[in-house]
Order: sequence, then C-alpha cells, then structure tokens
Amino acid sequence: MPTIDAARFLKDLNDLRRIGQYRTGVHRPTYSPQDMESRRWLVATLEEIGLEASIDGIGNVYGRHQGSGPHLLSGSHIESQNQAGWLDGALGVMTAVALARAGLPVDVAAFADEEGHFEGGFLGSKSIIGILSDAEIDRSRSRNDGTPLREALAAAGLAGLPRMQLEPGRHKAFFEMHIEQGTQLENAGLRVGVVTGIVGIWQWRITIEGMQDHAGGTTMAERRDAGLTAVRLLAMLDQELPKVCGDRSTWTTGRIAVEPGAPSIIPGKADILFQFRDISLPVLERMEACVRACVQESNRRERCTATLVNISKSLPAPCDPATMAALDAAAEKHAPGRWQRMPSGAGHDAQYIARVMPVSMIFTPSIKGISHHWAEDTKEEDLALCCQVLADAAEAYLQG
Amino acid sequence: MPTIDAARFLKDLNDLRRIGQYRTGVHRPTYSPQDMESRRWLVATLEEIGLEASIDGIGNVYGRHQGSGPHLLSGSHIESQNQAGWLDGALGVMTAVALARAGLPVDVAAFADEEGHFEGGFLGSKSIIGILSDAEIDRSRSRNDGTPLREALAAAGLAGLPRMQLEPGRHKAFFEMHIEQGTQLENAGLRVGVVTGIVGIWQWRITIEGMQDHAGGTTMAERRDAGLTAVRLLAMLDQELPKVCGDRSTWTTGRIAVEPGAPSIIPGKADILFQFRDISLPVLERMEACVRACVQESNRRERCTATLVNISKSLPAPCDPATMAALDAAAEKHAPGRWQRMPSGAGHDAQYIARVMPVSMIFTPSIKGISHHWAEDTKEEDLALCCQVLADAAEAYLQG
Repeated sequence: MPTIDAARFLKDLNDLRRIGQYRTGVHRPTYSPQDMESRRWLVATLEEIGLEASIDGIGNVYGRHQGSGPHLLSGSHIESQNQAGWLDGALGVMTAVALARAGLPVDVAAFADEEGHFEGGFLGSKSIIGILSDAEIDRSRSRNDGTPLREALAAAGLAGLPRMQLEPGRHKAFFEMHIEQGTQLENAGLRVGVVTGIVGIWQWRITIEGMQDHAGGTTMAERRDAGLTAVRLLAMLDQELPKVCGDRSTWTTGRIAVEPGAPSIIPGKADILFQFRDISLPVLERMEACVRACVQESNRRERCTATLVNISKSLPAPCDPATMAALDAAAEKHAPGRWQRMPSGAGHDAQYIARVMPVSMIFTPSIKGISHHWAEDTKEEDLALCCQVLADAAEAYLQG
Repeated sequence: MPTIDAARFLKDLNDLRRIGQYRTGVHRPTYSPQDMESRRWLVATLEEIGLEASIDGIGNVYGRHQGSGPHLLSGSHIESQNQAGWLDGALGVMTAVALARAGLPVDVAAFADEEGHFEGGFLGSKSIIGILSDAEIDRSRSRNDGTPLREALAAAGLAGLPRMQLEPGRHKAFFEMHIEQGTQLENAGLRVGVVTGIVGIWQWRITIEGMQDHAGGTTMAERRDAGLTAVRLLAMLDQELPKVCGDRSTWTTGRIAVEPGAPSIIPGKADILFQFRDISLPVLERMEACVRACVQESNRRERCTATLVNISKSLPAPCDPATMAALDAAAEKHAPGRWQRMPSGAGHDAQYIARVMPVSMIFTPSIKGISHHWAEDTKEEDLALCCQVLADAAEAYLQG
C-alpha cells in the first residue's frame, strides 16, 4: 500500500495557504493575482514531482502523469470564496499531489472557478468535459464586480490559450477529497465520510395570489388570504414529503414573504422559495410529484391560486459503487468504526467529472461545520488520516 | 317622526367635500389648513342652525343644542386619511347636522384625529372623555412627517385653548353613522348595517428562534428551522381558533418573515404579526388562551422556541341593546329585509364615547368596499336612507 508522507502533505497545504493568506484562511478569488500565483505555484510543484504541468485557457491547472496506465484523476479547485477557508478546494488539490508524491499513477487537476465567482460556476470542470461553450464564456460576468469573464481571463494572461479536454478512456476513476462543510461527522465523533453521491438540487418558486383586504372589515368567509394559503400549503408539504422522500433527502423553505406585510392587512400575495435535494433521481422525481400534487390539492381547496415554477434542477451525481467499496475498506482499516457513508449536500467538481468517468469523494470533518469563512478548519490528524485512506482506496481500486 | 331633508343633507356633504378636494375624494390631514378650514366651516354651519359652536384646544368641534333635554350626542370625525374618501368621518358629522336640522335635540361633535395622523390616534374622543393627558400630547408626533403635536396645534391656532369635556349625564346616548369600509352589505344586497359593537383588537408578535444553517449540509433531523416551526404553529392556530372563536371573530397573520430569506439557507429566525378581533371580551379571552396554548404546544413539540408578546389590546365596545333595537325597527321600516346586524371590524370614535354613555352605530354600504382611498363612495339613496333610519331611531329611542 502507498504511504502518504503526512508531514510533507501538511507542509504543501500550508505553503499554499500562504498565497493570498487572510487571517487563518485565504482570499483567492478566481483569476485574481493571488489565485494566479497559486496556479503558477501549483504548476511548479507538479513539475517538481515529475508531472507534465500546464495552465489552460480557462485557468485549469493539469499535471499529467508520465508513466503507463491505468491512470486515476484526482483534484478539486484552488481558488477560494472571498476571505474564506484554507481547505475548501485546496485540500482536494494537495491530496492529489500527495497521491502523486506517493507514487500513484495520478493526473492532478485544479479546476477553475468551482466557487462561482463568475456566472455559471464550475467553469473548469465544465470546460474540461467539453460542455462549456465559447458563447457562455462571452456572456459570463463576475458576480463580485461585473467584470466580463473574457476581460478577467485576459488580465490573468489566459486569453488565447487552448482549453484542454480530458483524454477519453485515460482515467479509471476520479477521486476528490473535500471538507464536509457540515457537522454530521463531528457530531457523530467520526473521522471519515465516504460520499455516496452529490445531491441534485431542485429549486422552485411558489407564488400565491389572493386579495389584499382590511383585516377589520372582511369576514373569514370572504377572505382570500394568500398568507394563510401559503401556511396551509407548506404544512401540507411538511406532512406529505416524508412519505415519499429518501433516507437523506432534505427540503427547505428559505423564503416566505407576504405582501404588504402590515399587521391589519390581509396578505394579497405570498412568495415562497422552496428546494429539495437528494442523490437519487427517482427520489427527486417522487418529491416533485408530491409537490405538484400538494399545489394541485391546495388549488382545489383554497380560494387563492398557488402557482409552482421550477427555477433550476441540477442532476444528482451518484458515486461509483466500486470506488465507494474501496474507500469503505480503507476507512475501516485506518479508522475502524469511525467512518460513515453520507451524501454531499453541496456541489463539487466531481458532479461534472461524473459525466465522463466513475467518481468518488471522501469528506474530512469540518470543525464546528464552519465553511466559506476564514475560520474554517480541520484537525491535522484528520487531514492526514483521510489522505491515507484515499491513497489506500485508490491503489486498491486500481488493482481491483 | 322627524323627516330628513335628503337634498339638503347631500348638499351639506358635497359642500364639505369641496374643502381639500382631491379627485373625487378629499385630502384633509389633521390640523392641515384644509382640515382647519373644514372645522371653521362646520362651526359656521352649526351656528347657522342654532347650535352654540366652538373649536377646543385639541381641535374638537362641538355644537351644543340650546333647548332642553334629554339630549343625544352624534358625530364622527372631519379630517381624512391622506388623499382619501369624502365620506369616511364626514358622513357621521353631516348626519349629526341633518338630525339637528330635523329638530332633534342633538349635540353635534367632530372629534379630532380619529384617523391617527398623530401618534396615539383618537385624540379628540379620548380628550373629550378625559383620558388624554397633557403628557401624551407633549410626546405625540405626526406619523406623516414627525412634527410634534404641540407644534401642529400651535400652527393651527389651537395652542392655549381649553380642551372641552362632555357634560356628565347630559346625553342619553351617542349615535354615529359611518361607511361600512367592507363589502358585506353590498355582497348581500343590503342597504343598512346595525352595528352590534366595535371589535376589540388584540395584536401579538410571535418570534421564533432557530439555527441558521446551510440547506445542503444539514440533515432534517439536525435542523432547527424557524420558518418550519412558524408554518406548523400558524397551521395549528388555523386548526384550533375556529373551535373557540365567536360567529364573527376574525384573525389575521399580516406578516410572516423569515431570516435571512435565501433559497439555500435554513431560516434562523421567524417574525410573525398576528391579531384577532371580536366584540365580546369573553371571546377575546378564549382566543388569547387558545393562542397561548398553541405556542406552548409548539414549544413542547419543536426544536425552535416561539415567544409570544402582546403588542396591544383595545377593549371591545358593544353597542347599547336599546339603541340597536330602535335602529332595527327603523331599518325594517325603511328597508324591509334589506338590513342586518353586524360588528364593526374597524375602530371608530364611538368606541371611546362608549366609556361614558350608551353608543350605537349604523353603517351605509361602501361601493366595492373601497376605503382610505379617494375612490371611496356610497350611493346617494343609501346615504339618504340611512340618515332617515338614524333619525327615526334617535327619536324613538328618546321617547322610549
């Protein structure tokens, strides 16, 4: 089995942390000088360990293993959210470097803009699998300051460079390590999460049209209270969704707003933002059918009309059973009884790479679940442990 | 029976409408030049018909009948909401004038600021029954522009004038005509509403404290979703309140707001404004007990804490049974089968006058229920009919 040099792995992570350091975290927005410095540093590091490294026209850093196959692909992203943590993305990239240092036949990738500083997001992983068009690049702008993506690429010195594509058939699978960005592992006293898949997120807007009226002069029977219809519909969803959901489905009403929102006025309109997540497409489809049935039932019962509009549907990306089995075995070996399988509720580069090869992910615990904040952290012993688990699993999978 | 001169009554109403006219309505905010012009016009009108008339230190206009008693008190308010209707308040004042013109022994009152342009509201009716302190006047400011009430009184020429008090024992009852400000009469094809009382309004704030979390990384079991607790509590109130309420109780959730209100964030806080109304104190008390029990039950079941805070409790003002009986009889005589008893869901000067004498109110239909808007209106034949009904009832009550 390959042995990870934990000290070297942690030194690499801390070297990268110094680029764009912000308090105990980092500030490396996509294509910023700090981000580009980190990409050039990564190219140099990859070359040092014998990989053929380059930056492509969307900012992807790719280190190609020089030996014979079969090969694995591993990595994540190297840019950060604004003033955010040192591990989100960087951990996956430096884990891939550690696998390469340990002699595994790994291509290392740092995909550009997983964090979505630019409209669209996931620019690098979309580009490398061939689903990011030039027209989309032409349209996209910075969500921070509106700078056109083309201008940002030019300022970063990337204009005109070719955008690399993954070589079909070259990789047996993709492995990504990431921080959990939640508290499930920590709360359960666990050290490793074997990810079962990246959830699909289906987002909806429900608008309810009633009749704004004075609360004093309108009897209960006369009212068309959009807020009350919203409450009844959301209570129905709260009753019905558990009957169709999966074990780890989530659903969230992030926004409930009624107009005009004054104490003595019957709301004439309600606006609801609702979403659900699961790693199984059939479960997502059952949940959609349930939501549609509840809205239909509401419109049958109520005097206010509810309208359901889909905002977005991202596809779930289930992880590969064989890679999960390899990770299970390695986790049980290094942290017996202190690991679990779990879905990823957030998006990751792996969800796009999953379209062209088997993918797997492993989560390290996040201290207090802090994410997208400079205080984000993970214990060093958990970082080292998870890296070793991933290395063992990668080798076992290659030999399997 | 006294005969109302309908043409004269409508002319008086239209003469008043020209003061501060705004489109087909009026703009006479309390103590504005237009409002003060209308008060001086009313004093002159009252003097013309033989009443002893004056304006007092809070702006109340009072016309005292010169003959022997027993006397009635009648009136309403003469200022308007901003850019509002020509009948709200004015109808009650000019109906009192019409009663006096018809020879009834009526004192006519136009109480200042029923509309609440200044903090506190109902300044005139509170002042005339002796429950408005100088300290409250010192503190009150315009809700429109923050002008201190004292400054507004001085600018209107009222500073230093005495504030009149009702003469104890002088009046057998108070009669107020008002527009319905709703659609119950119109929808039922009725022409007269005999008001059973002015509802008490009990207002509450419910705040729910949960834990703001990312919708992706937090399982359903881990969540403390303040918005979901709000939905469940409001659904419980929707189930339970009908079991304890009265025939004509109303309850309204005017505001539901969750923080931060973003699609992928579990709400950490919810803020609810809730109120209920009824004319019966025991019913209001039962409804309060129900709300308290629901909040308690929510706190037993849920992982988010709900806190119930009372914002205000206005006392209900039931109308006097003998005056109602007189109005019933007169309504049945002039509009057989086309009248009903009904509560007033909105506040009126009568609710304060009710503390010192029997009160009664009569509603005219509001076309389409439009209120607090310049398009507010009532058919002329309904105005004349209701005025005659009130005159007949007033005389019958005096003789009863």
